[in-house]
Formats: sequence, structure tokens, C-alpha cells
Amino acid sequence: MTPVWRPDASTAGSRAQNPPHYAVVDTTFSTVDMGGVAVDTLRGLGVPADRIHRVTVPGFKDLAVACKRLIEQGCSIAIACGMPGPEPIDKQCGHEASLAIGQAQLLTSTHILEVFVHMDEAKTDAELIAVCKNRVAEHAVNAYWLVEKPVELVKRAGTGQRQGFADVGPADPSKTDAKHLRTGAATPTKKAGKKKR
Amino acid sequence: MTPVWRPDASTAGSRAQNPPHYAVVDTTFSTVDMGGVAVDTLRGLGVPADRIHRVTVPGFKDLAVACKRLIEQGCSIAIACGMPGPEPIDKQCGHEASLAIGQAQLLTSTHILEVFVHMDEAKTDAELIAVCKNRVAEHAVNAYWLVEKPVELVKRAGTGQRQGFADVGPADPSKTDAKHLRTGAATPTKKAGKKKR
Amino acid sequence: MTPVWRPDASTAGSRAQNPPHYAVVDTTFSTVDMGGVAVDTLRGLGVPADRIHRVTVPGFKDLAVACKRLIEQGCSIAIACGMPGPEPIDKQCGHEASLAIGQAQLLTSTHILEVFVHMDEAKTDAELIAVCKNRVAEHAVNAYWLVEKPVELVKRAGTGQRQGFADVGPADPSKTDAKHLRTGAATPTKKAGKKKR
Amino acid sequence: MTPVWRPDASTAGSRAQNPPHYAVVDTTFSTVDMGGVAVDTLRGLGVPADRIHRVTVPGFKDLAVACKRLIEQGCSIAIACGMPGPEPIDKQCGHEASLAIGQAQLLTSTHILEVFVHMDEAKTDAELIAVCKNRVAEHAVNAYWLVEKPVELVKRAGTGQRQGFADVGPADPSKTDAKHLRTGAATPTKKAGKKKR
Amino acid sequence: MTPVWRPDASTAGSRAQNPPHYAVVDTTFSTVDMGGVAVDTLRGLGVPADRIHRVTVPGFKDLAVACKRLIEQGCSIAIACGMPGPEPIDKQCGHEASLAIGQAQLLTSTHILEVFVHMDEAKTDAELIAVCKNRVAEHAVNAYWLVEKPVELVKRAGTGQRQGFADVGPADPSKTDAKHLRTGAATPTKKAGKKKR
Repeated sequence: MTPVWRPDASTAGSRAQNPPHYAVVDTTFSTVDMGGVAVDTLRGLGVPADRIHRVTVPGFKDLAVACKRLIEQGCSIAIACGMPGPEPIDKQCGHEASLAIGQAQLLTSTHILEVFVHMDEAKTDAELIAVCKNRVAEHAVNAYWLVEKPVELVKRAGTGQRQGFADVGPADPSKTDAKHLRTGAATPTKKAGKKKR
Repeated sequence: MTPVWRPDASTAGSRAQNPPHYAVVDTTFSTVDMGGVAVDTLRGLGVPADRIHRVTVPGFKDLAVACKRLIEQGCSIAIACGMPGPEPIDKQCGHEASLAIGQAQLLTSTHILEVFVHMDEAKTDAELIAVCKNRVAEHAVNAYWLVEKPVELVKRAGTGQRQGFADVGPADPSKTDAKHLRTGAATPTKKAGKKKR
Repeated sequence: MTPVWRPDASTAGSRAQNPPHYAVVDTTFSTVDMGGVAVDTLRGLGVPADRIHRVTVPGFKDLAVACKRLIEQGCSIAIACGMPGPEPIDKQCGHEASLAIGQAQLLTSTHILEVFVHMDEAKTDAELIAVCKNRVAEHAVNAYWLVEKPVELVKRAGTGQRQGFADVGPADPSKTDAKHLRTGAATPTKKAGKKKR
Repeated sequence: MTPVWRPDASTAGSRAQNPPHYAVVDTTFSTVDMGGVAVDTLRGLGVPADRIHRVTVPGFKDLAVACKRLIEQGCSIAIACGMPGPEPIDKQCGHEASLAIGQAQLLTSTHILEVFVHMDEAKTDAELIAVCKNRVAEHAVNAYWLVEKPVELVKRAGTGQRQGFADVGPADPSKTDAKHLRTGAATPTKKAGKKKR
Repeated sequence: MTPVWRPDASTAGSRAQNPPHYAVVDTTFSTVDMGGVAVDTLRGLGVPADRIHRVTVPGFKDLAVACKRLIEQGCSIAIACGMPGPEPIDKQCGHEASLAIGQAQLLTSTHILEVFVHMDEAKTDAELIAVCKNRVAEHAVNAYWLVEKPVELVKRAGTGQRQGFADVGPADPSKTDAKHLRTGAATPTKKAGKKKR
């Protein structure tokens, strides 16, 4: 941990209100109510309902502009939930959607957490639901930390956190196993809530 | 369904007029009058002709700026209809066109629904026409919902909606069939108007 | 044909002069004087020389900013002519050039027609010249229609127009041949001037 | 070495403070505390703690906007540290993150040094840590030179500097070995601090 | 050659000074002093030293913002020199760097000539040096023509100019050899200064 860090550094620079408002945007294309998971997680962290703003759009290419509109209305951060389908064209569309989310962040100087779950990450609908719940919930916590408790993230710098998969953990110079440095090592079955905070 | 959602959240933030005006842009490259389908659908939803503005451009790379121009003239939303050809260069051009549509949305803080039908999605011209009619019509409804009835979209969050294909439906934890999570599962022959609203 | 369309919709929103001025930009990299074809076509349509502005740049990556500069000087539309070489790196550069042309359009709210002829589209220099002449000429007509007679484009919506190849024509539900929906069907030998207007 | 160069050329054009402030941003996804290495290196160069500002974000797609926010608060330069995972989707996400970092630089007219270490660059965790330490430290020196001693970089123009690998050195017309011009030649085991300055 | 062209068309639209100032930016990553070649060429064309501004950055991803900063200080044009390495990741980084250079041009309405020499274009260091010298020198001439003698470029429209390779020349309808329309035909060994001007 480094000694230098300013607690107010990560909440300045945008038109955000104080206390912060949260934007949650998801899609009708997804097969899981991802926005609902985000809202429930934020509520569980103590964020009152009137500081959470939810919009649903048809597909993930519509997420970026919807987030930008909510930020322009005063939200301090946005959570953009999408579920790319399994076809190659879906992958390309996901890439396009992601680039737009990147640009929307820069145009607003505001974080938009991209929470994508690919349909082919899961072997069954049950597993798909589990990955969605875990990944969305953990990114909702990240959103909360970014705007309300940024020191929580600095504490975890370089600790190999994952959302929707088991954490990798910090690099260990004495470790001889290097599977985690190669393809195919992710463990997608971590249960929601398993991670200690 | 989450309890938090503001009905006015998705129509603010742009220079749009009230009641909303619709931009419909299509191409001479396409082999189906996609813009005509969008206009007819909006008319069927009760939108008067003087709130629908149609422009045709040569190809899909011309769509983004045409939509941006119509939004700058006061349209609240745009429907951008294109038909990528079957060659690899057509796919790359479609990617470039899509990125521009994403940027046009962010520069205007206004939704532009990208409605692309790839020529090689269909086995015959008859099927191509059917896919076009269904996908354009359903996205015209999405456009209408986005600017006039956004709660209709929130109601359908995570329900696996598809345009031009049969809906996938919400994930079912008891389902053992996982074909829909893999490539090649889309059913492109859904007839226009089949979906219940 | 839909009943709704506003004749002034496609010429508003930019700093363009009236009557419209045309920008023509081409490259020293190309092996055919593509800009010359564009200028000759515009002149043949009755556009006087003092409303046509031509600039030549080294390569196609220089086209976008050259068009933007001419639009900022008052041009209503630009025609950007380039000829990607046959190597893979040329294809990637063409992609990069095309993305910049897309962005230049959005930053100026003005159409820039991208007219690219790939060297490997032709089997001989004679064929390359023919494709260039046809494609540039037809896009010069499109440029003229966009700023002076936009209804000509709406009339041709969904009619399968091609530039540099034989037109595909509108989809025909009774057609059993589907070659045009698959790769390799384009007919690149259409002669310039063959198409009826 | 050319005779023309202006010492003030590379610090003008931004809202940066004088003396310069440094932004260091890293991620919780990374398995090495990359931000800590950057901070320690800057401190070792004599930069006081109150001119170094550190923020941690969840993943590398969050780096660009975090850097932009810190630049908007007065930082003269930013160091963006990320660690793409080994999966193909991680590579695509790294590409998206990099494009956003490129855009953030242009929107702020300020350098952001992208320091990415790919997990599959290393064979073991020990090697991963070594590459991270070397690459981050050398880029922290580059950041320092860019804003405080730009002539140090001009002196090294065309000298084949590498970060995290052994330097290639300037091209030598008498050299017959051309391995360094082909894939697979990088030597990733250079120790931190090995390079002479 | 077309009769219409305005001599002042290509120097308007930016904040450039008159007489024009030149920005030259290169990298420490490159193994050849590319910036030095550009400066020497400009000097040879009669540009005085105080109108040439040189900056060196670590890698090619740092070129775009460095050029933008120099343009914002008054330069009329920039020459961005980079040398992508042979690895696949280097190619992707080159693509990202190139996209940023394209955007920097549009944001400043100013030409930035991208001069990239890929390490794997050459078989030996001697050849690499030769390609660098030729390509950089020819693009320095292009930069000079763009801002001081644009008619020189219009004269060469469609003449198949190449930088770093032998020129292809204009398409010849009587030519039966079509090797130049296929991959692998470039001749990289043209000597610097060989081309007649």
C-alpha cells in the first residue's frame, strides 16, 4: 500500500450530485433480470431507492447512450448490464457496445461499469443465472466503493479480484502452478456472496 | 421488477421536441424497403405522419450522419435501417457503420436504434423480406416505447426478447436444454406480428 | 414509398453554403485519377467549376481530415476517393481510414461519401480503371442527389443499388435463386454509364 | 541528434500545474500492486508524495476515465497500469481499454502512459512480478522525463528502448543477425534496475 | 488533371501560423532515428530550424497526443514516426496508435502524416534503415507540399506513389501483368533519393 492517496480524488470532476445517485441500465435481450440484481445489491448496501435510477433498453448497443443520459441528469456513476449472445456477430456487437461505453465514460468524465455476461460462459441456464447474480452484485459493490468508499479499492490493488469467477488472488513468487496464467483456468461457479469483504 | 424507476428519466437530456418526432433512415443498397416498414409500424401505433421524418442514403455508412442531422433538427429518436451484403468486406463495413451509429448516439445523447439485416441471414429473398419486416417492425415498437412508454421496456428486462428471430425467453433454472447458449440456435422464421405485446 | 418526407430535411444542420459546394479529395497512392472522375461527373450534372473544390493527399488515411477542412470552409458534402492496396496491412489501414471518415462526418454533421476501390477487386489494370470510373461516377451522382435532390434517393430505397458492380435490384419473393445472398456473386464488370437514371 | 528542439514544447497545452503532479491508476484485477511500483519509482526520482495521486479501479476498462478525472483535477501526466488476463476475451477487452486510453489523452491533450502486462507474458508468478516491476518502473521514469526532462527522451530517439524486456538497441547496418525483426525474440527476464540511465 | 482547384484550400481551417511550422515526433522504441531523417529532409527543402519542432516519446501510442500538443502550440502539420515490432500484440498496438492519430487529426483539423515502418518489413537492419530513410524522407516532402505547395500533390493524383517502396505508377489499360494487384508485389529496396521530383 502506498502512502499517497487523496480521498476526494475520485468523486470530483463530474456534474454528479452529493450524496451520489446511481444509474442502472439493462436490456430486454438478456435472459436474466440483471438490473434487478444491481438494484437489490445497492439497496442492501443502504442506498435509498430515490438515489437509484433504472432504465431498460432493447439491446446492449443501446446501453451507452442510456447511461450517458442518466449521468447528464445527475447520476454519479452507472452500471451497464448486457448479455452478448453466442454467435460471432453477437461478439462483434458486444465489442461495438463496449467501445461506446468507453466513449460515454470519457464524454461525461464519469465511471460506467460494464457488466457483460456472455451466454456461452455458462453450460446451463442455472449456471447463467448464478454468474449473472454474482458478477452484477460484485460490480454494484464496486460502483458503491468508487463513489462512496474509494479507499476500499486501493486496499485491493493488485489482489487479483474477479467478478463472476473465483478470485485469482495476488501473485505469489513461491507458487509453481501457473495454470492461472494460461487460457481455460477460470472457475465460473463461484456462488454469489462467497467473497469476504 | 425493481421498485425504483422514474418515468421521465429516459426522455430528458436531448433537444427533442414534445410530442416526440421520429427519424427513419434507410439505404438504396438494401433490397427491401426497410424504411417503409418502420414508417408503417409507427403509423400503426398512432404516430401522425408529420412526426415521422424519412431520409434515404446510399449505403449504411451514410446512416449515422443522416440520423445525427435529423436529431439536430428536433427528432427525439432515430431508426437506422441497413442491410450488410454477404462478402467479408461488407461485414467490415457493417462494423464501421455500427461504430459510427454508436458515436452519433453519444454526440447527440439520443437513441438511434440500429436495425441491420445481413443478406446471409436468409436462405431466400422471401425469407429476407420476412426477417426485415419483423425486425424493423419490432424495433419501431422499441423506438416508440423508448420515447413514449419506457415502462414497457422495464417490464421486459431480462426476458430474452429477439427481433427478427423467435424470442429466447427468460432463463429457466430447471431447463436442461442449453442449445440457446451455443451457436446456431436462432430461429429466423418468426412471422411478423407473431409476438404478443 | 411512404407518404412522409420533408424536402428540406437533408440539407439543414451544417454550415454549408447555398447553392451547395462540393469537396473532392483523392490520393497520390491510387493508380487511377479518381478525383478527376468525380469532378467530371459533377460538371456533367451541371455543377459549375467554382462550386467544386479538389484537394489531393498522399494516402487514404489523409482523406478524412482533408474533407473536414473543406467542409469547414463551406462545402456541403465531400467525396473521399481511395484505393487500398492488396496487402493485409493495406486492408487494416483502409479500416482505419474508414473509421476516420465516419468520425469526420459526425463532427461536421455533413455527408462524406467514401469511395474506395480495392486493388484486388480487379483482375487487370483495365478492369481497375473501369471499376473506378463507374463507382466514383455513381457516388458523385449520389452526392449530388443528397444535397440537391434527396427525393431521388428515397425513390430508390430498398432497390439494391450497387456502385462499381451490377445492381442487385429489389428482393423478389418469387425468386428461387439465392446466389446474391452468398459470397462471390458480385459482377464487377458493369460499364460506366450503363445504369438508367 | 537534430539541432532543433524547444525545451518548453512538451509541457504546454494542458491545464497541468507547475511543478507537475502525477496520476497513478491501477486495478484490483491485476495480481501485482503495479500502482505501488509506480509510486515508489516516482518517489525515488525525488517527486514528493503530495504531487502523486493514486486511484484504484476494478478493471482496465475503468482506467481511462479515472486518468481523465485526475488530469481534470490538475495532474500533468498519468500512468495507467493494467494486467490483461490470458483468455481471448481478455485480449479484446484490453484492446477496448487501450482505445479509451488513447481517446482520453486526446480529449485532455495530456500524456497517459499505458503500462499493460499480459498474464501470459510470464511463465510463473515470480516472472510476472519481475516483468511488472521492470515495466512499471521504466514507464514511471518515462513519465517523469516527459514532464520534467523531455530532452532525455530526444537523446534516446531511435535507440530501441523496451520496457519489461531487454532493450533491442539501435539498428546496426553491419549486423547479420535479424532475429529481432521476427516474432519470438523478446527477452522478458531483464531484471528491474538493470538498465543504465 | 481537372481545372478546378483552389490554391488556398488546404492551408485554411486550423490555428496554424504563417509561414508554417512543422512538428516532428518519434519514439525511443524505434531502432532508427526517424525523427532525425524528417528534420534533415525539411531542412534540405529550405525550412529553417526555428520552424521545426521535435519531440520524442516512449512508444507509438504516445505519438498522437504529442502531435496534438504541438499543433495546439501553432504547428501547421505533424509527422508522426513509429516502428511497430514484429509480434502480433505489436500489430494490434500499431492499429490502436493509428486510430488515435486519425482522431488527433480530426480534433485539430490538421494533417498528421503517419510514418510507420514495421520491423518485419525488412530482412536485415541495413534494409530497415534504408526503408526508414526513404519513407520518412518522402513523407517529409509530402508534409511540405501539403502546407506549402499543395498543387504538387494534385499533379500526382492517381499516379501510384509509394513511400519506402518503388512507385507502382498509374494504371495502364494495355498492361497484362497484374502482379501489382495481388499480395507480395511490393519492392522494398528502393533507395532514398531515387525518385525524381
